[in-house]
Amino acid sequence: MKTIDINSDLGEGYGDYAKADDAAILGLITSANVACGFHAGDYMTMHQTAVLANKNGVRIGAHVGYPDIQGFGRRHIAYTPKELELMTIYQLGALRAIAEHAGSRLTHANFHGALGNLSFVDEDVSLATLSAVKAFDPTLKFVALPHTAAYRVAQKLGIDIVASFLADRAYTPDGVLVSRKTPGAVIHDPAVIRERVQRVLQDGKVRAIDGTELDMPVDSILVHSDTPDSIEIARTIRQAAQDIGYPIAAFA
Amino acid sequence: MKTIDINSDLGEGYGDYAKADDAAILGLITSANVACGFHAGDYMTMHQTAVLANKNGVRIGAHVGYPDIQGFGRRHIAYTPKELELMTIYQLGALRAIAEHAGSRLTHANFHGALGNLSFVDEDVSLATLSAVKAFDPTLKFVALPHTAAYRVAQKLGIDIVASFLADRAYTPDGVLVSRKTPGAVIHDPAVIRERVQRVLQDGKVRAIDGTELDMPVDSILVHSDTPDSIEIARTIRQAAQDIGYPIAAFA
Amino acid sequence: MKTIDINSDLGEGYGDYAKADDAAILGLITSANVACGFHAGDYMTMHQTAVLANKNGVRIGAHVGYPDIQGFGRRHIAYTPKELELMTIYQLGALRAIAEHAGSRLTHANFHGALGNLSFVDEDVSLATLSAVKAFDPTLKFVALPHTAAYRVAQKLGIDIVASFLADRAYTPDGVLVSRKTPGAVIHDPAVIRERVQRVLQDGKVRAIDGTELDMPVDSILVHSDTPDSIEIARTIRQAAQDIGYPIAAFA
Amino acid sequence: MKTIDINSDLGEGYGDYAKADDAAILGLITSANVACGFHAGDYMTMHQTAVLANKNGVRIGAHVGYPDIQGFGRRHIAYTPKELELMTIYQLGALRAIAEHAGSRLTHANFHGALGNLSFVDEDVSLATLSAVKAFDPTLKFVALPHTAAYRVAQKLGIDIVASFLADRAYTPDGVLVSRKTPGAVIHDPAVIRERVQRVLQDGKVRAIDGTELDMPVDSILVHSDTPDSIEIARTIRQAAQDIGYPIAAFA
Repeated sequence: MKTIDINSDLGEGYGDYAKADDAAILGLITSANVACGFHAGDYMTMHQTAVLANKNGVRIGAHVGYPDIQGFGRRHIAYTPKELELMTIYQLGALRAIAEHAGSRLTHANFHGALGNLSFVDEDVSLATLSAVKAFDPTLKFVALPHTAAYRVAQKLGIDIVASFLADRAYTPDGVLVSRKTPGAVIHDPAVIRERVQRVLQDGKVRAIDGTELDMPVDSILVHSDTPDSIEIARTIRQAAQDIGYPIAAFA
Repeated sequence: MKTIDINSDLGEGYGDYAKADDAAILGLITSANVACGFHAGDYMTMHQTAVLANKNGVRIGAHVGYPDIQGFGRRHIAYTPKELELMTIYQLGALRAIAEHAGSRLTHANFHGALGNLSFVDEDVSLATLSAVKAFDPTLKFVALPHTAAYRVAQKLGIDIVASFLADRAYTPDGVLVSRKTPGAVIHDPAVIRERVQRVLQDGKVRAIDGTELDMPVDSILVHSDTPDSIEIARTIRQAAQDIGYPIAAFA
Repeated sequence: MKTIDINSDLGEGYGDYAKADDAAILGLITSANVACGFHAGDYMTMHQTAVLANKNGVRIGAHVGYPDIQGFGRRHIAYTPKELELMTIYQLGALRAIAEHAGSRLTHANFHGALGNLSFVDEDVSLATLSAVKAFDPTLKFVALPHTAAYRVAQKLGIDIVASFLADRAYTPDGVLVSRKTPGAVIHDPAVIRERVQRVLQDGKVRAIDGTELDMPVDSILVHSDTPDSIEIARTIRQAAQDIGYPIAAFA
Repeated sequence: MKTIDINSDLGEGYGDYAKADDAAILGLITSANVACGFHAGDYMTMHQTAVLANKNGVRIGAHVGYPDIQGFGRRHIAYTPKELELMTIYQLGALRAIAEHAGSRLTHANFHGALGNLSFVDEDVSLATLSAVKAFDPTLKFVALPHTAAYRVAQKLGIDIVASFLADRAYTPDGVLVSRKTPGAVIHDPAVIRERVQRVLQDGKVRAIDGTELDMPVDSILVHSDTPDSIEIARTIRQAAQDIGYPIAAFA
């Protein structure tokens, strides 16, 4: 039987600051990408997220980012490949220790914000960061967007990929996300989101913003945690998948 | 045959800033307490230190401290036991990952600066931090000063202790270090340092600042890395031990 | 004609993180205590707050705190008096420059969180920080709680005091705030808040948690910005004052 | 009578970490560019530097940089013009307050590391940062390298420029510094340094790395504070200038 994973970026608070209602989201997803203290998160939020994820049977992955709390990891910082490699190792190690201390374990990793965006187009950056992931733990999966440099590099490195689909974001004809600054980049209509989820699951296809048909492998659907309607969209996605016979379950 | 370990606090640079000539010290010691990015160190210095330690056959331990680069972890910050527990886990996990990435492994842990000082007198703090060490990896040894709360708590928790002796620091009649602010707290005379090393190794005794004879278990001797005469003192200590039949070798 | 100032702690976001609905609060107050980038705030939030305050005719003061974004300045850090003096100067200078760049100016200062709490009981700390305020700009007022060490030190230093009253917090018989951990410390009943505001304005008195009558000078009433009912409480306070003939206006 | 200013980047320590022997350099220069707590420095080092500068009759300027202690401000971070403008204001305000608290005053500003390098080629960045300098205090001078975007923007804005010359660095035929990675970029020979100083003072010319003759206005000569031979080079430069009748004196 086919199933579908639902993943979300969580643990994005910092100290007293909160970003999302993690507790509510955790009831609707099967895997969490947890901030590791660099672009967001600290040892307390990481632990709290791991405990809650564990309680909800949700998988814990490392969401690796630039060390820039003020910028939430969203602005590019010019690191060398060696720096990227070692900051990835540092974050993976810190989160794995916290996850295990919470009685859970690390199952996957991916990259946040400006670092993630760079890895979509830069093979050297992808190689530096993904080699670190593989060296750290070759059983970790990489939750990745198809049609990106990072996806291709992970394939070359033999890293197990969990292909992640964004049901509420438009894609270019090249198969990558349309910039948020472009009109139509973010999809709010539940009916459209529902249709896209069912299409991608049944046919492995998505219609790009210009109408082009795209191949789109999918092992997981990403739901945002910090948008006003995130809970509602998560429910729409779950229902859409279940209605065509895809139970929600963590990736294999 | 008896041997003696020599340990030192290393990897205390930060970015472009250096603190000590780590490369020189690494040729003279057998175990290193490496800053984990909180009171000093970053993923680059941690890795560089681990690589060099590995090359020199030096053991790598985690030197856990308060997150305060500006204050070098030397001023007290009022954390809860839970915060201390989790910041310890975070640092241990980060350094273990870096050490393993450098082809080495983590063998021990201890506490730096104001956190270390607090652990000497506060059993709750010692319990929070040492329980974390044990939960993280029960095979990690604790490099500890005898006659302290931390030492006693580690014994209760069944953590393997490496008793560390400071040859160039005076002890109170209670067996703890005399504050650096007190005249006579720091010993510079190589002859006195030599005599103290041989005495503690042969008899397990040290003379306190007031003349009292103290029992002083010893598995390792600490050498400072960041004092002007640290290299010379390290050599004095090595020679003193070797001259009475104690080869320098990492703790068992 | 008598008037009453209403002050609030604002600009407490950091980067992408928000703490309160500053825009809503700014319509209800006459002076703002703005975080200076140490316990909260950054150059962007400081500027945005200054611009909005200016637009609302609200005075801008410096809310000086410990450098600890993760802890929101709420945990004690052991600084020397010289460090406290200079971190105060640094924060005052940074905020004054931002305020002036926003077309406004700095009119007052006070101390946040754990630093504020310490200044209530520690004359040395109060002297270090308030001497810095006076040296920086002797025309700055100090928004202060009566019956505290900081209040007394400010009087000795000849700093102009704006006595601040907390309508929704219980006082001890000694005239200081009851700890939030004590039942009854926080007052939620609008009728009680209203009565306390009118009493303190008309008689300069407040009833302590044990029933004792306390003298309580008042030049301003503090409203919290980050509690769920902060807007409603601010409105209650404004109405209570206006109903007995105290128009809301910035301190003289 | 003609004089020549000598400037240097100082106050580049952080907490316990030191970068240069500031006290020694301060005896040889007439104006200091002081780190403001973002790429280096903190309220303590800033104050100590200001006090020492004052004692030596050395002018104090703000060395504005990216907020990145670990990277020493040397790696590019993608800030918006508004962020650059406000981080400049913040740093200027903080240092001015510290300088005045030390009994001195701010006379100039310039930009450090990756931000400085970017300002050499990017007019938008130069406009954002230099407009901030001018808005902050129109009497501040800009210590600048000729033949750069920042120099041209400062001229357009009507900011008073102190043209700074690097006697120990090669120039391209376009009049900008040859990258340190290029062989011959750094000049170590005291005789060559001496000749270049005298040539630029007497003729306003320097020979570029390819032999081209370049016009090079000069109001100040920069000496590095953190190279092994910085003291010796500073002495060479002073002597070279004095020998042809240019007393060392702060810019007008």
